[in-house]
Amino acid sequence: MKNVLIRFVYSSLIWRSFSTKFAMANSKFEYVRNFETDDRCLPNTWIVVRVDGRGFHKFSEKHEFAKPNDKRSLDLMGKAAGRVMTEFKEICLAYGQSDEFSFVFKRDMDLHKRRASKLMTSVASIFTSAFVFHWPQFFDIPLKYPPSFDGRVVLYPSTQNLRDYLSWRQADCHINNLYNTAFWTLVLKGNLTNAEAEKRLCGTFANDKNEILFSEFGINYNNEPQLFRKGTVLVRDKKKKSEEELEGRLTKDILALNEDIIGDAFWNNHKILD
Amino acid sequence: MKNVLIRFVYSSLIWRSFSTKFAMANSKFEYVRNFETDDRCLPNTWIVVRVDGRGFHKFSEKHEFAKPNDKRSLDLMGKAAGRVMTEFKEICLAYGQSDEFSFVFKRDMDLHKRRASKLMTSVASIFTSAFVFHWPQFFDIPLKYPPSFDGRVVLYPSTQNLRDYLSWRQADCHINNLYNTAFWTLVLKGNLTNAEAEKRLCGTFANDKNEILFSEFGINYNNEPQLFRKGTVLVRDKKKKSEEELEGRLTKDILALNEDIIGDAFWNNHKILD
Amino acid sequence: MKNVLIRFVYSSLIWRSFSTKFAMANSKFEYVRNFETDDRCLPNTWIVVRVDGRGFHKFSEKHEFAKPNDKRSLDLMGKAAGRVMTEFKEICLAYGQSDEFSFVFKRDMDLHKRRASKLMTSVASIFTSAFVFHWPQFFDIPLKYPPSFDGRVVLYPSTQNLRDYLSWRQADCHINNLYNTAFWTLVLKGNLTNAEAEKRLCGTFANDKNEILFSEFGINYNNEPQLFRKGTVLVRDKKKKSEEELEGRLTKDILALNEDIIGDAFWNNHKILD
Amino acid sequence: MKNVLIRFVYSSLIWRSFSTKFAMANSKFEYVRNFETDDRCLPNTWIVVRVDGRGFHKFSEKHEFAKPNDKRSLDLMGKAAGRVMTEFKEICLAYGQSDEFSFVFKRDMDLHKRRASKLMTSVASIFTSAFVFHWPQFFDIPLKYPPSFDGRVVLYPSTQNLRDYLSWRQADCHINNLYNTAFWTLVLKGNLTNAEAEKRLCGTFANDKNEILFSEFGINYNNEPQLFRKGTVLVRDKKKKSEEELEGRLTKDILALNEDIIGDAFWNNHKILD
Repeated sequence: MKNVLIRFVYSSLIWRSFSTKFAMANSKFEYVRNFETDDRCLPNTWIVVRVDGRGFHKFSEKHEFAKPNDKRSLDLMGKAAGRVMTEFKEICLAYGQSDEFSFVFKRDMDLHKRRASKLMTSVASIFTSAFVFHWPQFFDIPLKYPPSFDGRVVLYPSTQNLRDYLSWRQADCHINNLYNTAFWTLVLKGNLTNAEAEKRLCGTFANDKNEILFSEFGINYNNEPQLFRKGTVLVRDKKKKSEEELEGRLTKDILALNEDIIGDAFWNNHKILD
Repeated sequence: MKNVLIRFVYSSLIWRSFSTKFAMANSKFEYVRNFETDDRCLPNTWIVVRVDGRGFHKFSEKHEFAKPNDKRSLDLMGKAAGRVMTEFKEICLAYGQSDEFSFVFKRDMDLHKRRASKLMTSVASIFTSAFVFHWPQFFDIPLKYPPSFDGRVVLYPSTQNLRDYLSWRQADCHINNLYNTAFWTLVLKGNLTNAEAEKRLCGTFANDKNEILFSEFGINYNNEPQLFRKGTVLVRDKKKKSEEELEGRLTKDILALNEDIIGDAFWNNHKILD
Repeated sequence: MKNVLIRFVYSSLIWRSFSTKFAMANSKFEYVRNFETDDRCLPNTWIVVRVDGRGFHKFSEKHEFAKPNDKRSLDLMGKAAGRVMTEFKEICLAYGQSDEFSFVFKRDMDLHKRRASKLMTSVASIFTSAFVFHWPQFFDIPLKYPPSFDGRVVLYPSTQNLRDYLSWRQADCHINNLYNTAFWTLVLKGNLTNAEAEKRLCGTFANDKNEILFSEFGINYNNEPQLFRKGTVLVRDKKKKSEEELEGRLTKDILALNEDIIGDAFWNNHKILD
Repeated sequence: MKNVLIRFVYSSLIWRSFSTKFAMANSKFEYVRNFETDDRCLPNTWIVVRVDGRGFHKFSEKHEFAKPNDKRSLDLMGKAAGRVMTEFKEICLAYGQSDEFSFVFKRDMDLHKRRASKLMTSVASIFTSAFVFHWPQFFDIPLKYPPSFDGRVVLYPSTQNLRDYLSWRQADCHINNLYNTAFWTLVLKGNLTNAEAEKRLCGTFANDKNEILFSEFGINYNNEPQLFRKGTVLVRDKKKKSEEELEGRLTKDILALNEDIIGDAFWNNHKILD
């Protein structure tokens, strides 16, 4: 008993000095917080966060993605993007193609005080997490290793700037998809090697590629799936729907569309940026 | 045949105008790239990226984490951090506790041109991806929903500043863990309600908590696992090891330690920041 | 002669090593340029640079400025601002009051690649330089010491934001000028001490101050000079003018006005921000 | 009398609504303050503010500066820099050459919360103001128009980085001065045209220039004034001095030296950066 008491007193003394050391240590060290910078986004600007697959060329090969487009992958990307929109109600629209997805935050929103680092890391993390989490719903083969996406923030002061950004991404989708469709058709149906296909397409314009597809392979590029040619745009739609109408929706409230977003028609239909 | 030819010519014309439109569109829209900012980190500074669990209070409850510490979760955090270090050789050390992990990039490194957004989003994404990917190795119950982590970048100009940062995090680990250990002991062993335990601890100093644990529950806080009291520090160790010695390592090259990093001993042993 | 030759050879050797040392030194040191940051302003935003007098309370006392307003000082401020606008054609409007002046750069301008530091330091420097340079044209007493102005850059994404900024400055002019007019009237005409005048005005609203001026001193605040109540707005006007009409202009092309810029009338007259 | 009363009541009502409008207006507009960004410099780094003459080629011609160096101008630059150091005690050293001057703020200083914009605009403004203010002390001819200087902030994390920055500027001084000395000697003493002198020097190394000066014109570059070859370094020296010793000082406390600051000797003598 005595022994215990002694030990207690002794320990208590140690604890006291130990605790004091730590309490002081913490206040002594806390100055390092001041090294963090304030990176709030300029108010009243559209905030776009774009995530891009890191090393997806290798990733798509290791997981035997279909060429030139893997529908499972695109659908999984859409699913992951839907998850991001579900967590962040401040996102009014998302657009994705290939291994990238852009998220548009409303210009007047104040989530996380508009801190750029918080927004881009949260979006990149949620997107990645959902991509890995939902993988088995879209792919039969298991993930061989954890994929990742980087992210960035870009600000657009005017609605026209924002629409031009989205047009830029969709034009990029078109250009790349036309090239990839021609390339893989030459390889898979035309029996060219990769190098030969590359050489064949080198210096060609879009219409040349269309003609190769049509005249040599009977493929009308315009009949390719909209998903491949236009990418995916996610919008919110809170109108009540019958069970039937909900069919094919990403979530009850989020609609995935494969439409042109360069022209005005889409924006006239969906009053998203007004 | 004639029909086909006509269709071809017709399509070709459409294509041409369509393609031209797109090619022009892309160059017309590309100006939006100039809205991206250059966020390179100041050269010759230590770059720290810290990831923090988003909504982990709820996440730990939904997945029935042990209280006050869940070893499975801490080990999974370490595993995910090891994955980040494997992808980024420029990281010389990582320190984690609770639902956070800090990664230290060498001060002279030039990965991704030191762009803050690339670095923090990549680290947050890889960490998250590995956390979800390796979950089943550490937990018997499946993930109920995708967890996420935000991230930030902080720069430290001097090695002393960096060590103070790491000391701050480890002091924080100690303070929180001592509180949580006392709190959950009062609740789980002392049969107090959460509110009663909180009230009991309100205004107490570290040594008071130590004494409660020792005198009322016979718990010597100093005998609690180092993993809980000190957190986890990951370092690289490229010395060749026998199979035996590799036992318990995170990877062949990465060592997980649960040591004090506030004092000088650790830094004298591991010449990491020199 | 021999001696000279030897000296020459010797010197030449020294020079060579000396020069080599410097040439190498310069390339060895030049890496420090990479520590400069790129601080370009977001495109398509209104760039406002505001300069503010540093220590102008003391400066105005040392140079015996009239109270509550010194017309010479305000005119000199306008003159200096005109000089800034003459050097930077990209400035479409300037607004000044008290010891501050704001300069509005057109949203699509690309001067100095929109680098914030270049813009704000150049404006602050030109303004200061002209203020000192033109001092003798406005003041009889010589400058006792060199005055200075700090500067800052603020970005406004929409024209409404910009107009609200300018309204904010003019409302500030009104509020301060009404207070100062009441204060100095109480002191100079009412024979109150500074402390008594301050106390008298403490907690009063604008209308109280108006009533003090009118009922006690017969001063109708609305009849005070527009220069004092509204501040000065500089706009460009390139219409050809007769000699007569040029009377009172700041320069051939720059017009100084003392008008309300909160309402729409001014903006409808001058299509500056369209 | 009645009339007056009515007018008073009437005015009062106008005032009330007018004042209320303004008070509300101000709070309505004040949101625009949130568009200012926080640009604090990273703590524990050396802050360098450098000012550079804007359009000084033209300025030096219009004011007939001596070629290749105008001692009056360099002395005036030093005077203006001294004024900056007198206002900002946090500056521990300044180095100038040609039409530029660099100011080094102590790494632990907290002036203006280390806000980059405040620091660089204040330094640029004070420097400019003093340059114009003191002009008549150094030049017989009056200023023809107001000169200006832009400014920038650069951060250096280590003392070695800072010393390399200063070495870079002094090496630059040497390289330019040697070139200019050779160029103007060829023009003024060798009767070459500017174009001929330029061609003659094209592709030459430092030692070639030394040899031209020595063999063709009997000029030993090393005997040129240190002011021209080394630039000017301003340091504080608070040791009490006799009247005699104060001779030639910039101020009682500030010493202007023309010494090598690339080697260690200077830094060993003046414990400025320790």
